[in-house]
Amino acid sequence: MELIRGRIAGRSLTSGDRLPSIRSLAGSLQLSASTIVEAYERLVAEGVIVSRPGSGFYVAGPLAPLSMAEIGPRLDRAVDPFWVSRQSLAAEGAVLKPGCGWLPADWMPQSGLRRALRHLARADDADLADYGTPLGLPPLRQLLARRMAERGIDAAPERILLTESGTQAIDLLCRLLIEPGDTVLVDDPCYFNFHALLRAHRARIVGVPYTPHGPDVERFGAALAEHRPRLYITNSALQNPTGAVLSPVVAHRILKLADQAALTIIEDDIFADFEHTPAPRLAAFDGLERVVHIGSFSKTLSASARCGFIAARGEWIEALVDLKIATSFGGGRLGAELVYGVLRDGGYRKHMDGLRQRLARARTEVGARLKQLGIVPWVEPQAGMFLWCRLPDDLDAADIAREALGQNIVLAPGNVFSLSQSARGFMRFNAAQSLDDRLFDVLWAVMHR
Amino acid sequence: MELIRGRIAGRSLTSGDRLPSIRSLAGSLQLSASTIVEAYERLVAEGVIVSRPGSGFYVAGPLAPLSMAEIGPRLDRAVDPFWVSRQSLAAEGAVLKPGCGWLPADWMPQSGLRRALRHLARADDADLADYGTPLGLPPLRQLLARRMAERGIDAAPERILLTESGTQAIDLLCRLLIEPGDTVLVDDPCYFNFHALLRAHRARIVGVPYTPHGPDVERFGAALAEHRPRLYITNSALQNPTGAVLSPVVAHRILKLADQAALTIIEDDIFADFEHTPAPRLAAFDGLERVVHIGSFSKTLSASARCGFIAARGEWIEALVDLKIATSFGGGRLGAELVYGVLRDGGYRKHMDGLRQRLARARTEVGARLKQLGIVPWVEPQAGMFLWCRLPDDLDAADIAREALGQNIVLAPGNVFSLSQSARGFMRFNAAQSLDDRLFDVLWAVMHR
Repeated sequence: MELIRGRIAGRSLTSGDRLPSIRSLAGSLQLSASTIVEAYERLVAEGVIVSRPGSGFYVAGPLAPLSMAEIGPRLDRAVDPFWVSRQSLAAEGAVLKPGCGWLPADWMPQSGLRRALRHLARADDADLADYGTPLGLPPLRQLLARRMAERGIDAAPERILLTESGTQAIDLLCRLLIEPGDTVLVDDPCYFNFHALLRAHRARIVGVPYTPHGPDVERFGAALAEHRPRLYITNSALQNPTGAVLSPVVAHRILKLADQAALTIIEDDIFADFEHTPAPRLAAFDGLERVVHIGSFSKTLSASARCGFIAARGEWIEALVDLKIATSFGGGRLGAELVYGVLRDGGYRKHMDGLRQRLARARTEVGARLKQLGIVPWVEPQAGMFLWCRLPDDLDAADIAREALGQNIVLAPGNVFSLSQSARGFMRFNAAQSLDDRLFDVLWAVMHR
Repeated sequence: MELIRGRIAGRSLTSGDRLPSIRSLAGSLQLSASTIVEAYERLVAEGVIVSRPGSGFYVAGPLAPLSMAEIGPRLDRAVDPFWVSRQSLAAEGAVLKPGCGWLPADWMPQSGLRRALRHLARADDADLADYGTPLGLPPLRQLLARRMAERGIDAAPERILLTESGTQAIDLLCRLLIEPGDTVLVDDPCYFNFHALLRAHRARIVGVPYTPHGPDVERFGAALAEHRPRLYITNSALQNPTGAVLSPVVAHRILKLADQAALTIIEDDIFADFEHTPAPRLAAFDGLERVVHIGSFSKTLSASARCGFIAARGEWIEALVDLKIATSFGGGRLGAELVYGVLRDGGYRKHMDGLRQRLARARTEVGARLKQLGIVPWVEPQAGMFLWCRLPDDLDAADIAREALGQNIVLAPGNVFSLSQSARGFMRFNAAQSLDDRLFDVLWAVMHR
């Protein structure tokens, strides 16, 4: 196969040319005819050649352009909410990504994933080919119900809906709960893709400053009174990007204010497994009346096998199922099967114990090296990937990030996270993606230009 | 594990109870202590029991309700665009689904899927854990470009975007191209989930009657003039539900009308691999100027491993990538890897050859048995799953369907497909799901009640 592909790429065979007959190629390569037949069959399946019965095999045309690479990091892209995601998702091997929000692939539970895939290869026909049921794989919802119960959240499996991802979970909720022009509260700073998603919904976005213990309660109350938002979207466990943790007293006050203002809160729990000690969950205090609890396993298990979930009031679950079917028909059953397979495998718990320790060491090491450059964290993170740091000397993080991109490093400048654009001097570093010496060399050079 | 689960289900162990110690259970079951340890570890991972270090293992609480079954077919559900999908997706083993729109799991390329899963278990770490690139797996897009080229559609890989499914593809396009209140044309009758999706987008939906050769050209022109729609959504290859095939002359006329009216057409190609001989593709005539070509592998490869695609103008692809990231972040990489693995395997082509023959036999057999009941097809389908049939004696298909549901058979009554509700006497039968004698016994009984 490689021989034929090579001849096509080198244009010694071009579209319309007839390939050597099976017998003659078998003879010249000293291989069996059946080997050549198999190779030709596979090339037909790939569309590289076509079979004309009675006549032979021919090179298909027109040919693909010689370069097929994904569009890599672009120097001219505006520093907007897509800046980090587009650059990071397209980045190839040599590009460093200290600004991205996920772990390197080899930090994820690879042996558990591979074991689950092998197990799936022996599963029932239905598991491999059928659409998912409306709510999604029952044993996974049962497992999620128990995990939530451990964090004090009372959600029966029938009140849990599986989704394709955490982002799709929030997107479905926005489709259900808000209209264009409705106001939505977010933290400032917050995860940049919340901005992108809410813009896609034409929401009016209002930011509430985040403190080391949760949103600023006074500013939260003022925002409720002035803007009458429909929704508030926030993280639980660990705030993205600051790494700060909600305190119980702030949680309680926020919920009281939400109650008075008939505000719905979406609590995004995707960082749950990074915690050493569990932070308060708004859904635990509130009992899923006013709070919707969502999550996924993209950060700790796999971003390749997609699976997220929503835990909410029963009436909303029913409406969300209809919306999910209307906009994506069945859910991704295989992703749910894979996630369930890894979660129920005893090895995942051990893996996460090891991962939390590995991350703690990385945060320590990266934190120390950043401090040497005068880059200091806003709060000392107790868990997770992120170091939210202030740059020294009034440096502009967006300028630094543009310079670094020219040297194949994707950084996350503070203002992509801040609605009020008040994080000009901040940068979010992913400790697990910041362990390469080159990062610190480039940072030093760029900061002293 | 089953022993412990059984005791909990039977309530001989309840929440808070301490489990037997590892050593004592090993002794009483005559198993090694390490087997018991492994079992307890897995039960902890599932959340069924909790470990209290130094104290032992305890049953977790509160317990799940004893019945966890998905909500099965509901007799009181309104016969609306979700009637068939909700009932079919939730149906369990004993329920027959002649009304559903997919093949039985054992008709799908199971050995290819299993082979691809085993192969994936040995893939790179990145394939198993990382987010997909913005456009999606490059070799799959290249393969799709070649497949489209075989049907005369000129789409470079960079103009192809992978999505989670065909439905998500259309949903993304609607998010990009239409506003609430915009008018969208559909065929009458058409796939019921187009109705559900367009309602979710608050579109005004206008139906154009379908003829055995494509949409009624005069009525199409009249609808353009009267309603000035933004979009027209239709199938290529085989129309759902009628099984009719677009003729070249109708295709050409529709495109001329579309051009004069600045109409965008979305052509849904999900039934492509069912064709024996290729029907015209609007995207082939038009060159992706006005036509967007979408598809997926849910019908012929797997509905469990989700993967769809959009081929469109370059500017739209760029905007669609941003929309995809905003609303679902990365795409499902594993689904794409699996689909690619099966497609490039020489066995898929052979499988599809066999499947088409198997379906042809099923259509013949089912068609004959339906004719015995006086149920006759509107057109004789040349390919695919569907038999779109008229009931005799002015029977109402919705009444028949409700009666059949009481006997655990999910049918597809005509009016769920028809915007104008002009298909009261029609039923769509999926030949592959209609091979059970019980269906015909129940149909006879219900029709003669």
